[in-house]
Amino acid sequence: MALDNDWFTEIHAGAGTAFSLKGKKVHEEQTPFQKIAIYETETFGNLMIIDDCTMVSDRDNFTYHEMMTHPALYTLDNPTDVLVIGGGDCGTLKEVLKHDTVNRAVQVEIDERVTRLAEQYFPDLCSSNNDSRAELLFEDAIKWIKEAPAESLDLIIVDSTDPIGPAEGLFSKPFYEDCMKALRPGGIVIQQSESPLLHMHLLKDMHHAMRSANFTDVKTIQFPVVIYPSGWWSATMARKDKNIEGYREKEAQNKKFETRYYSADMHKAAFVMPVFFKKELG
Amino acid sequence: MALDNDWFTEIHAGAGTAFSLKGKKVHEEQTPFQKIAIYETETFGNLMIIDDCTMVSDRDNFTYHEMMTHPALYTLDNPTDVLVIGGGDCGTLKEVLKHDTVNRAVQVEIDERVTRLAEQYFPDLCSSNNDSRAELLFEDAIKWIKEAPAESLDLIIVDSTDPIGPAEGLFSKPFYEDCMKALRPGGIVIQQSESPLLHMHLLKDMHHAMRSANFTDVKTIQFPVVIYPSGWWSATMARKDKNIEGYREKEAQNKKFETRYYSADMHKAAFVMPVFFKKELG
Repeated sequence: MALDNDWFTEIHAGAGTAFSLKGKKVHEEQTPFQKIAIYETETFGNLMIIDDCTMVSDRDNFTYHEMMTHPALYTLDNPTDVLVIGGGDCGTLKEVLKHDTVNRAVQVEIDERVTRLAEQYFPDLCSSNNDSRAELLFEDAIKWIKEAPAESLDLIIVDSTDPIGPAEGLFSKPFYEDCMKALRPGGIVIQQSESPLLHMHLLKDMHHAMRSANFTDVKTIQFPVVIYPSGWWSATMARKDKNIEGYREKEAQNKKFETRYYSADMHKAAFVMPVFFKKELG
Repeated sequence: MALDNDWFTEIHAGAGTAFSLKGKKVHEEQTPFQKIAIYETETFGNLMIIDDCTMVSDRDNFTYHEMMTHPALYTLDNPTDVLVIGGGDCGTLKEVLKHDTVNRAVQVEIDERVTRLAEQYFPDLCSSNNDSRAELLFEDAIKWIKEAPAESLDLIIVDSTDPIGPAEGLFSKPFYEDCMKALRPGGIVIQQSESPLLHMHLLKDMHHAMRSANFTDVKTIQFPVVIYPSGWWSATMARKDKNIEGYREKEAQNKKFETRYYSADMHKAAFVMPVFFKKELG
C-alpha cells in the first residue's frame, strides 16, 4: 500500500523500519538548533516532529512521561531537587511536579522554541509551567550541569532527542561524571535509552559509560511508546552510592494524583527485562 | 519523507497509523482463503504478509510466540493436550512442544498454504513439525472445536489473524462456549487480543464474551510485537472453573529450554496492565 501526502512518515535511520501517522502539517520552522514541525493528526491529536523524528503526540505521550518520572521518583526516599534536561514539551516537568516532596524542578532545554510551540499546541503538557517550584531555563544543559553545585540534586532526568545532533554529548562518560558530581549520595540519573530491539548497542554503551563514571548500580526499564521506532522503548537509570532496589511502594499505591500507565505494580513490572537483554549485558 | 517501492507498508485500518519494513517481495499468491505474500527484508529477515497485514518476521516473532504459549502453559499444573487454532507458521506449535508435559499438540489451520510457505521461508519455526506429539490438520477450527470430545483439552491457543475475514468467528461467544465444553476443568483458552492502545473496544468485547460463555476468570497480558499495529500487543486468557492465579514458578525458573523474552519474572510482569486498561474494563 502506498501512503499519499496526507501522512507524516519517519524512516528509522539504519533500522529498515518506518512509522507513519495520518495528518496535516500546520507549522514548520528552522530554529538555531533544529527543524521543528507540528502536525494535526487524525487519531493521535497534535504531533511534534524534530529533525524528521516523532517527539510527542497528544494520544500516547502518557506512557513516556509517566515512566521517565515516577519509577525514579518513587525509588528515591525524599526527592526534593529535580533537574530535567531537554524535555522542552514540559510533559516530564508536569509529572515531576505531581510529587509533593519536590521543592524545585529546573528544566534546562537548549531550544526555547520547543517550549513555546508546546505551550501553543500541547497546552495540557504545559499546564504546570507556572507552578512556583518550576524554573524554565533555555540554555545548554551540558554546560549547566558542569557548573551545578556539587551534591545539589536528587534526580536528573535526561529527556532528550536521539544521540545525534544537539543531544550527542548527553550520551557520554564526561556528561555522566558531571551528573555524578551534581547528585547527592543515593541520587539517580534516568535517561531515555531507545529501543531494546533496535538499539541494543546504544544500551550496552550507556550501561558501560554509566558504570565507568562510577555509578554504583545501573538498571533499565521498558515500556511502550507507540510513536517511537519499534514502539518498544526503554529508560536507563544509574544510582550514586546505592543499589537501585526497592521503592516507596505504599506511597505509590496511595498516590494522590492520577496516572494512566504507571502504578505501584507497573513499577516492579517495568524493571523485568527480556532474557536476551540480560544476556547481551552479560 | 516518502517511501519508495523498496518498502512494504501496512496501513492500520481505522487507526491512522502505518508501519513499513524495507524489503523486496519474493512471492505472492491468492489461496482460497486469503492473499499471502513473502518479503525478504533488509533488517527483519523474512516477512509473511496475509491480506496486506504483517503476520510474522524472523527477527521479532519470539516475543509473540513465547508469550502466546509459556504463560498459559506454566499457569496450568500439568498440560498434556494442547490445541493451536490458526498458527500456520508453526512458531506457536514449536514453543508448545518445548514442554515435556505435553503429550499431544494439534494445530488446526484453515489454510495449508500458510504452513507450506512457512516450511519454505521460516524453516526454524517449522523445526518441530515432525515431533511425534504434533498433529497438523488443515481444516476449519470452528467446526473442529464444535466436534471435539468434551473435556479433552487442557489448553486452546487461538493464534489467528485479525477479527475480520476467516478469523471473525473466533472472536464470538458461540466459539468460546465450544472451547468451554472441550476444555477440562481448570483448562485455559488464550487468544491474541490486539493492541491495548488501538483496540480497547475489541478487548472489552472479548472479556465480555468470554465471561458470558461462563469462564470463571479472564485476564490480559501485554508484550511488544514490533511488526503489529502500534508495536504494543496483548493476549487474553480465560479459565474454566478456576481463577488465573499463580503458576509453576520454580519450573519456569529452571526450565530446560531457551527463551529470548519469557522468563519466570516476565510471567508475573506481563500480567500487570496499565491503569487506563483496568479502568476501561471497570
